[in-house]
Amino acid sequence: MEWIKNGDLSYLEARKIGVDEAKQNTVKEIINEVKQRGDQALYDYTERFDGVKLTHLKVTKEQINEAYSRVSDDVVNVIKKAASNIRTFFEKQKPESWSYTNDEGTVLGQQITPLDAAGVYVPGGTAAYPSSVLMGAIPALVAGVKRIVLVSPPQKTGMVSDGVLVAANEIGIDEIYQVGGAHAIAALAYGTETIKPVDKIVGPGNIFVTLAKKEVFGDVAIDSLAGPSEIVILADETANSEWIASDLLSQAEHDPLAMAALITPSKEFGQAVEEALEKQLSDLPRQNIARQSIEQFGKIILVKDNDEGIDVINQMAPEHLEVVIKDAEEKVKQIKHAGAIFLGPYSPVPIGDYFAGPNHIIPTNGSATYSSPLSVESFVKQSSIIKYSREAILNNSQHIATFARYEGFEGHARAVENRLKEETD
Amino acid sequence: MEWIKNGDLSYLEARKIGVDEAKQNTVKEIINEVKQRGDQALYDYTERFDGVKLTHLKVTKEQINEAYSRVSDDVVNVIKKAASNIRTFFEKQKPESWSYTNDEGTVLGQQITPLDAAGVYVPGGTAAYPSSVLMGAIPALVAGVKRIVLVSPPQKTGMVSDGVLVAANEIGIDEIYQVGGAHAIAALAYGTETIKPVDKIVGPGNIFVTLAKKEVFGDVAIDSLAGPSEIVILADETANSEWIASDLLSQAEHDPLAMAALITPSKEFGQAVEEALEKQLSDLPRQNIARQSIEQFGKIILVKDNDEGIDVINQMAPEHLEVVIKDAEEKVKQIKHAGAIFLGPYSPVPIGDYFAGPNHIIPTNGSATYSSPLSVESFVKQSSIIKYSREAILNNSQHIATFARYEGFEGHARAVENRLKEETD
Repeated sequence: MEWIKNGDLSYLEARKIGVDEAKQNTVKEIINEVKQRGDQALYDYTERFDGVKLTHLKVTKEQINEAYSRVSDDVVNVIKKAASNIRTFFEKQKPESWSYTNDEGTVLGQQITPLDAAGVYVPGGTAAYPSSVLMGAIPALVAGVKRIVLVSPPQKTGMVSDGVLVAANEIGIDEIYQVGGAHAIAALAYGTETIKPVDKIVGPGNIFVTLAKKEVFGDVAIDSLAGPSEIVILADETANSEWIASDLLSQAEHDPLAMAALITPSKEFGQAVEEALEKQLSDLPRQNIARQSIEQFGKIILVKDNDEGIDVINQMAPEHLEVVIKDAEEKVKQIKHAGAIFLGPYSPVPIGDYFAGPNHIIPTNGSATYSSPLSVESFVKQSSIIKYSREAILNNSQHIATFARYEGFEGHARAVENRLKEETD
Repeated sequence: MEWIKNGDLSYLEARKIGVDEAKQNTVKEIINEVKQRGDQALYDYTERFDGVKLTHLKVTKEQINEAYSRVSDDVVNVIKKAASNIRTFFEKQKPESWSYTNDEGTVLGQQITPLDAAGVYVPGGTAAYPSSVLMGAIPALVAGVKRIVLVSPPQKTGMVSDGVLVAANEIGIDEIYQVGGAHAIAALAYGTETIKPVDKIVGPGNIFVTLAKKEVFGDVAIDSLAGPSEIVILADETANSEWIASDLLSQAEHDPLAMAALITPSKEFGQAVEEALEKQLSDLPRQNIARQSIEQFGKIILVKDNDEGIDVINQMAPEHLEVVIKDAEEKVKQIKHAGAIFLGPYSPVPIGDYFAGPNHIIPTNGSATYSSPLSVESFVKQSSIIKYSREAILNNSQHIATFARYEGFEGHARAVENRLKEETD
């Protein structure tokens, strides 16, 4: 862990997604191929990138049954419990339509409707992320999206990972395609013979998936451009250094580019965490990855007091934030920018990764300054409702016509004034 | 107006923003220049594209006073009234933070915070759009955004349009830069010596502005990629054909690429509208523009009944929709995709363009299938709040650890299980 005492956060720049024209061009080419050659392009890219020769794109009922036979009851059970918690949280988040009537009898409001179709990208390759299925799809289910499509690359076995298939089946999603990468994004955006296009694509992926999402944005909606995982912990001497060390490592083990930072007003506490972390690191199965992350981006930021710590947090806008200080619940109101905030000693980030309810798909790389975790709102949209009364148009037509004429739109003014004619004729 | 009887909406494809590599490259070059040369690039591009040699970028208090001297009291008054209506509507939209505590004492919730800084693009050139100032900035003000920056290109006079400056001043916005186009978007995204960067850029502009917004997306947030204006009207024989004709023209006069369509179950009514429209067109000041729009995209879509009409609407997902039929308020619930819905005979779209309250910055080109009018929510974000209780971690640590280990993250499992150690030690 490197100690930072001067508040210099410039090291964070190195984690941003840079412009990589070569990769961008590759992604553009992949998208064009999928647009032009449809399914056949998906088969070809899957063979080339995943080393798998597919015989069909859509996962069959048999494949799902096969997956169940390899997943333990314990895991199926946990998936069920997690799904239930996640659903409970998102049910509370569901926005409602509203309207009001003003003195003139005008009705104004907002009608909420779900998207028709959403695509959830679930990363694959060597790992299996059933949790990403739950986090990506359940908010869409709660929003009322009728068609939810899952895409995930096949593993070396030739199949999407068992856990992903089980999680999808547990929440009732059966439109699953065994295809990943930029080509899967293109298929979701523009459609192929087999895969009908969707309105929005969500879920994190590798750099090619991220660049493809940026490329198709505007033709369809996307959630956000995900970067490697981050944890920032504000902890003072009231915290347990062993626990905090393990929380830092739980993010560092994700990715060599993951970022784990401790902000503390106590040098002694920081040293204790550093020591504990080194000890815990030595027998962590993924210590190779975690060590690279800690060496590059593992920082202990020493601050004057917790308030200064919160200032630093607001500059960083971390994906995951733990606040383990005296008066944590009071202090949290000063936090302006953080994706998910974990409060108090019993809230390590993994409870949110898997189980508590709120999403684990959270803005990274400082984008919590302007964006939110994936939510029910990500899958609905608003239509404004405007119903003017006769009284309202009589009272206001002149104002509206004046404004329209000032902007040079005589036709606008006339459309309003026409409503008065019947009155005077 | 062309009659469509077979429900073929393929003509809408011609209105989509196509890929134009030459323009994209121009925009990329402009963005790079602004990144590298800052203010000087802004001066150079303003001279080149707007034909104005600026002496400073930020609009001065003197320029605002000067603008007032040229705007009539009537117009200032209407701006005030419109601003008040818009603010009233958006106040109702403001989302609140919430949280709940479950049986185990776990607190889950969502903290709402505003963005720090937002940029509003206001189109300029030959026209003046004070209404766009109000619609772009007021939701940000209501959201609590501290720094709201306006950019708008100078007119041939060398100044941003008077109405824009007056509208900005009326709602208390004083950070205004007299710069537009793709270079203004680049300045807002990456900053220059004079213009500090913002977190989100909103507001419609020409094709270069739109492409620039797409290009900077991911480094900052943007609202949506705006296309030319649209109106779809579902009206039956209970509607007034003169009024409906003028409503169609009020969109057609915006732009040769604007789209105006009438959906009706009544051939007679459609013919009456067609006739009225032709008559009204003949003395419309912007008839040249309106006629191009009507010739290209003016359609009368004959349907079996109003329900079929609503099906067509849901396929079109129009920016503006008028529903002038029997039982309009009941039928509106069947509408899935439309940006703003105007109900009944006294609700011509211009009331919403200027005055009623809801936003006139609304998704175009079918993107109402997945996006919403600009809103207070466009300027806030959510942070998830998770505070587990000791009881909750005791009860659930095993589940969470099982899930983490299934995904191959031993460090995640240990972070949770460490919380139990103290209990058994």
